[in-house]
Amino acid sequence: MTDFSEWFHNILEEAEIIDSRYPIKGMHVWLPNGFKIRKYVLNILKDLLDKEHEEVLFPLLVPEDELAKEAIHVKGFEEEVYWITHGGLTELNKKMALRPTSETAMYPMFALWVRSHTDLPMKFYQVVNTFRYETKHTRPLIRVREITTFKEAHTVHSTKEGAENQVKDAINIYKEFFDILGIPYLITKRPVWDKFPGAEYTMAFDTLMPDGKTLQIATVHNLGQTFAKTFEITYETPEGEHEYVYQTCYGLSDRVIASLIGIHGDESGLCLPNEVSPYQLVIVPIIFKKGGEEVMAACKDIESKLKDAGFRVHLDDRDLRAGKKFYEWEMRGVPIRIELGPRDLSNKNAVFVRRDTMEKVNISLEDDIVENVNELMSSITFNLRKKASEKMKGQIREVDNLEDVKESIENERGIISFAWCGEENCGKEIEEQANVDILGVQEEEINGKCFQCGSEAKFKAFMAKTY
Amino acid sequence: MTDFSEWFHNILEEAEIIDSRYPIKGMHVWLPNGFKIRKYVLNILKDLLDKEHEEVLFPLLVPEDELAKEAIHVKGFEEEVYWITHGGLTELNKKMALRPTSETAMYPMFALWVRSHTDLPMKFYQVVNTFRYETKHTRPLIRVREITTFKEAHTVHSTKEGAENQVKDAINIYKEFFDILGIPYLITKRPVWDKFPGAEYTMAFDTLMPDGKTLQIATVHNLGQTFAKTFEITYETPEGEHEYVYQTCYGLSDRVIASLIGIHGDESGLCLPNEVSPYQLVIVPIIFKKGGEEVMAACKDIESKLKDAGFRVHLDDRDLRAGKKFYEWEMRGVPIRIELGPRDLSNKNAVFVRRDTMEKVNISLEDDIVENVNELMSSITFNLRKKASEKMKGQIREVDNLEDVKESIENERGIISFAWCGEENCGKEIEEQANVDILGVQEEEINGKCFQCGSEAKFKAFMAKTY
Repeated sequence: MTDFSEWFHNILEEAEIIDSRYPIKGMHVWLPNGFKIRKYVLNILKDLLDKEHEEVLFPLLVPEDELAKEAIHVKGFEEEVYWITHGGLTELNKKMALRPTSETAMYPMFALWVRSHTDLPMKFYQVVNTFRYETKHTRPLIRVREITTFKEAHTVHSTKEGAENQVKDAINIYKEFFDILGIPYLITKRPVWDKFPGAEYTMAFDTLMPDGKTLQIATVHNLGQTFAKTFEITYETPEGEHEYVYQTCYGLSDRVIASLIGIHGDESGLCLPNEVSPYQLVIVPIIFKKGGEEVMAACKDIESKLKDAGFRVHLDDRDLRAGKKFYEWEMRGVPIRIELGPRDLSNKNAVFVRRDTMEKVNISLEDDIVENVNELMSSITFNLRKKASEKMKGQIREVDNLEDVKESIENERGIISFAWCGEENCGKEIEEQANVDILGVQEEEINGKCFQCGSEAKFKAFMAKTY
Repeated sequence: MTDFSEWFHNILEEAEIIDSRYPIKGMHVWLPNGFKIRKYVLNILKDLLDKEHEEVLFPLLVPEDELAKEAIHVKGFEEEVYWITHGGLTELNKKMALRPTSETAMYPMFALWVRSHTDLPMKFYQVVNTFRYETKHTRPLIRVREITTFKEAHTVHSTKEGAENQVKDAINIYKEFFDILGIPYLITKRPVWDKFPGAEYTMAFDTLMPDGKTLQIATVHNLGQTFAKTFEITYETPEGEHEYVYQTCYGLSDRVIASLIGIHGDESGLCLPNEVSPYQLVIVPIIFKKGGEEVMAACKDIESKLKDAGFRVHLDDRDLRAGKKFYEWEMRGVPIRIELGPRDLSNKNAVFVRRDTMEKVNISLEDDIVENVNELMSSITFNLRKKASEKMKGQIREVDNLEDVKESIENERGIISFAWCGEENCGKEIEEQANVDILGVQEEEINGKCFQCGSEAKFKAFMAKTY
């Protein structure tokens, strides 16, 4: 992939993920194939969230006065909120915003719902479209004006510890989610100047895209009591006192799909994990003039066995050259292709081609085909995760002076780790001089001095060129 | 149900379907229990549509110039479209509308997608939120400003017959869908003055609510070539000519849930068909001081057998009076309640109470419990459908003069059928004089005279007080 940006744009079109020709900048159409990937990805997350969260659905529109209530929060969003001013030909008395995120839509209702300590904790999530009037250069799935698949969870707790533990639980849920997709991540606490507007602190997942820039793919916020105080969300303690609640929220966007595509993809196109591939296997009969019927019968037999076992399998019997079919299914990232021709049939074999390594394996038709497929799928999934994770690890480099940062970023991109004092002034100085963003810190013990200001280092910090 | 409106409002709140206290008129919050019903209902429809349609997702916003292209269409919607005029603090160069429906969002893209006759037919659907600036009195799920669950399908065909057959196919899909939910319907062709703006003709499903007013629950539109000509959607014929396509679209809204609730509900609350009830069975242990452990063990055994069989079953072991639990689960409409106490246990019995008739049946614990539940569920589903369908049929009355219409509507509401000439002037006269709406016509052979103007009757027509 010499030019990731071009590759990404092409693959979205060729694999029919997104049509970016919609006549509004930053808003795109999910095509059938892309929609299916989106659906399977969403199902994985829903299964994880459904264990402890209730799914709800709040209105898209937020009245101006509710949005404006939490001053820090609204300041963070006021330049990127879309405003509705008219209904039909009538000017509205009160403007309404398209939600940029749903705190100000949800929390006035939470104030009505939370009564007693026995109501808590409450854990909700919703999957909705959200809107940001992005002025920067937009890019499908990465920087958009309509986030079509915002998966936001919001929780309410009676204690500070409850909220802190929820942050950990949320991180674990997202870890499991990204692990299933084989998307590697770096988890850090964002610097104070980059936390969610209104949050006490923000934990973030970043992954590394093929062009060496990091992409924020999930965030988890401890909101403390900020919003509770603004929206008057209180509960009655066992002693009959009224106390403010503690809250968290966390979310993921369409960027999950962008990273899934970018991280596993290669020069031949998409490379999808079994779990989310619209077709998990395709069968391509190799038909010559003679023996066509027998080959097709054997292919249908394989198809029905795999269907019965619950696989999403497709028998491609179009009247096209096999090579054209291979090209197409490789480009769409189907994990396993099964080829079967007259010679294979007389050898009682089928050829299995795995998309991740393009290796070919002969599988005997007399063996248990479902078992063989299961094994191969596990191996593919394992390999995708391992490859992606090792690649990302290999691109995190420790650096101990600013000159090396500049050179390292210039030449190789990737992520740089360094010892840092944690002071805002010092951090902003680093960002400006090295022309990179500080992603955040990990609060593990660290020895030595801050590589910029020389005072005692407090954190292991990370920086990178970011999307 | 003496006052349906009050009953409906109360049950939405008590059964935790919708919270209507959201601070924007006509926009509501789906609560966890309501969301689950919505999800199961949606799954049934998706399974039906997925057989022949591809799911896609288009942006919410429509640029002003695209919306304005189809003159008749925009005229039908211009008074109820929400307009976005600002992004952040900036006034936009071009206003954008929140989709009231998606023709004008989709069809510019269809013009890019359709190339050759081999591309056709194309069949898509999406499930999205749509917006109408309703000036009439709003009512949750029935008349809202944000339709949260608009299920709209759009198809493209090379011939007029293709589109006509698609209208029939769509009607069959919706019939199957409503039959599964036990929602009875009357299908008519809407009068010309009430068709979808831009359509050749509109077929509609109406059901009858408990207050005797009809509710439009689905529509199917034959769009002919109107939009094809406006948006320049053409295809190349086998002969190399370029022809305009023929189109249809059809959709359903949140009203499906409103009718599900209203039609099966009774004084005790919801009464849900098995297919869409969040819990399909609840088990209520009847615990006294003695023998509690054995009873609980037997309940857990039943629970695990039913879970293994795939049922959504809930063992209600809260420390509450059994009567309170009965009340609650009846109100939430759970199809079957299983009660089990020490005496039942010593008789090797459990008591099954079906929600639809409140009948109690003793089931031996030595019998196959899953088989018994399956039988009972079939019987409940069958009974719900039959009861609802007979009730609606009983409220369709044939009337042959206008005086009787007025009296009949005044006294009993319901639907009135009559012989009609089909002329617009005559129809509008009827609507005005009787103060009801003509729902539409069925194109079966009819003898006699139009009951209003006395000329030859062409159709069997229907009218009612409508929502």
